[in-house]
Amino acid sequence: MTGYHAPAPADNGGRARKPDPARGFTAAPSSGPTEPMARRARPIRPPPRLLSRAADISGALRSMTAATFDILGIGNAILDVLARAEDGFLTDQGMRKGSMALIDTARAEAIYAAMGPGVESSGGSAGNTCAVAAALGARVGFLGKVAEDALGEVFAHDIRAAGVTFPTAPLAGGDPTARCLILVTPDGQRTMNTYLGACVAFGEADVDEAMVASAAVTYLEGYLFDPPAAQAAFRRAAALARQAGRQVAISLSDPFCVGRHREAFRAFVARHTDILFANEDEVMSLYEADSFEAAMEAARRDVKLAALTRSERGSVILAGDETHHIPAAPARVVDTTGAGDAYAAGFLAALTRGHALPECGRWGSLAAAECIGHFGARPQSDLKALVGAA
Amino acid sequence: MTGYHAPAPADNGGRARKPDPARGFTAAPSSGPTEPMARRARPIRPPPRLLSRAADISGALRSMTAATFDILGIGNAILDVLARAEDGFLTDQGMRKGSMALIDTARAEAIYAAMGPGVESSGGSAGNTCAVAAALGARVGFLGKVAEDALGEVFAHDIRAAGVTFPTAPLAGGDPTARCLILVTPDGQRTMNTYLGACVAFGEADVDEAMVASAAVTYLEGYLFDPPAAQAAFRRAAALARQAGRQVAISLSDPFCVGRHREAFRAFVARHTDILFANEDEVMSLYEADSFEAAMEAARRDVKLAALTRSERGSVILAGDETHHIPAAPARVVDTTGAGDAYAAGFLAALTRGHALPECGRWGSLAAAECIGHFGARPQSDLKALVGAA
Repeated sequence: MTGYHAPAPADNGGRARKPDPARGFTAAPSSGPTEPMARRARPIRPPPRLLSRAADISGALRSMTAATFDILGIGNAILDVLARAEDGFLTDQGMRKGSMALIDTARAEAIYAAMGPGVESSGGSAGNTCAVAAALGARVGFLGKVAEDALGEVFAHDIRAAGVTFPTAPLAGGDPTARCLILVTPDGQRTMNTYLGACVAFGEADVDEAMVASAAVTYLEGYLFDPPAAQAAFRRAAALARQAGRQVAISLSDPFCVGRHREAFRAFVARHTDILFANEDEVMSLYEADSFEAAMEAARRDVKLAALTRSERGSVILAGDETHHIPAAPARVVDTTGAGDAYAAGFLAALTRGHALPECGRWGSLAAAECIGHFGARPQSDLKALVGAA
Repeated sequence: MTGYHAPAPADNGGRARKPDPARGFTAAPSSGPTEPMARRARPIRPPPRLLSRAADISGALRSMTAATFDILGIGNAILDVLARAEDGFLTDQGMRKGSMALIDTARAEAIYAAMGPGVESSGGSAGNTCAVAAALGARVGFLGKVAEDALGEVFAHDIRAAGVTFPTAPLAGGDPTARCLILVTPDGQRTMNTYLGACVAFGEADVDEAMVASAAVTYLEGYLFDPPAAQAAFRRAAALARQAGRQVAISLSDPFCVGRHREAFRAFVARHTDILFANEDEVMSLYEADSFEAAMEAARRDVKLAALTRSERGSVILAGDETHHIPAAPARVVDTTGAGDAYAAGFLAALTRGHALPECGRWGSLAAAECIGHFGARPQSDLKALVGAA
């Protein structure tokens, strides 16, 4: 809490969020990548000040072209299939509790056949973050690849109905829309099995240059390191954002994902990242650190701003020599699916609104608590009321 | 409560319910209508005694071939898409709150485009009843038509994972799997918009004669009067059940559905129905009665057993000159979708287990209360524990 003065919240300009009535749920034709931009033109507002300590860069931010989006998320576009399961089911299936495993078609079919009745809803790490941030009043875009199929239409409907601009053309004639088979155990922990499907086709051509340049923060999910073409897209998005003088945020997603791509992650965080989101396991895996404290100090050196989450122990926000400890918001644990995504959403929605870092952490904690209190990753409550941002 | 003695509960024979691992979620080939029968052969147990007052028919029941299924549901196979909505949304869309409207493709697309982010789960009135009854330990089959598409696979997975035998061949090359766009208002009321899709192709050929003959109760949802070919299937199923000396149950589904087909319903109830499920509005619409009491007496004359639900005022069970008033179980109202279906499931699961009518009503009330307490129509709690039937 060192010497930070919160700027007044930016005017939201009464932005209405209306889904596009031209998009049906039966085989809608693909839309060009720029079409929704014109439709969603919004009143210009001053660019947000991103860092509490960053008096040195806030002048530069203010003089930049006004951002059209607060947050542009880029990630795997996935439909979640959630079912309850006992711990024994995970053991029988050889699943590592709490983690995300990549699976092929045969394994997806075998797991689906063995698991209980499910509930389907839109998911994907960055997709969840975008939906939650939009619910909190942020202006949000999302880039990610679905197929031209029923589940792809569900994903597109849901993210647009949440108020998020989603221009990526669906994949025709390739793999089906990605799905994640999520087993929720009685302790509320989620264990995920992801079939990437059409996500593998997300590439550099899908990175909408104008959208990246017009977003205050480009937010990348670490899972994008898994599909190879997406890695290239990821780097291009970061380069474009930096070129336009915008901020690049990354979420590390999963300790095993970090393990699969550690060197690439380490280089990306050090060279191209402004804002780092990670939980304790992920940041320790990234830096191969023996303690959270050691990992924390490594992150402090690498990025301007880091928000490190520690489940029920809350989160730690690092910005230069500033350190803020944020308590977790009270929650009855029903299902932790999407809790980290929701934290990042709350944090970034507050940050791009010009709030002080402790307030950003509070929004993150509240959004995560809301998410944990119900089945599924997308919000079910009035989040604006929850954080007091009517 | 006049002179009824509960028979001892029948032995359940430790029936394990395992989904078929051969069924995947990507384009599974259609299965013939009889294939799962052999797979699901179960220990034979004595036939249930269905009616408390029916000493005259219980002897006949006992001497019949033992039933393989307690309940065979026949209904529209539908995927629900649930979203929260304000009352104003219903007004703007010209929807009648609390009712079910049939919609065509164009209207389905328009409503879907306008509604908020959704959650998908398997539904359909009789399908819900089957899933709940199976969760309560009943041996259950279901007949209904999905398409050979992603949503059809979801429906088939969910009902089989719930422990229900579902042999109907999916429709190839026709309309897509049916879906119901359900708007849940802040008072917990649901307003449904059904696109029937592949359900229209359900016909007499889909009525598995052996399954009907081997089910203690064939349970028909009133909504089947809407697709014309299903009406014929409906009558055939009832005739086959009667021919095999089994019981025929019908649920009236919706007052407007009753209004659309009143004469046909009236004749069917009087001539072919043993057990009638209806709520207050439906039974009054059926008999065009001015009071619930008048409708009640008409139902008493028409059928051997009627269970009439009255929301928070509980239910009334009529069997000859017996009348049982059953209180509603306490519930926090989140979403009433499927409450009536769950009531019928609880009632029939207890009845086919040999319980007394007041106990059947109690199971119905508890199953309905569980359903009302969460979003969506399929059970989320351990229902056996809830009713005390471990």
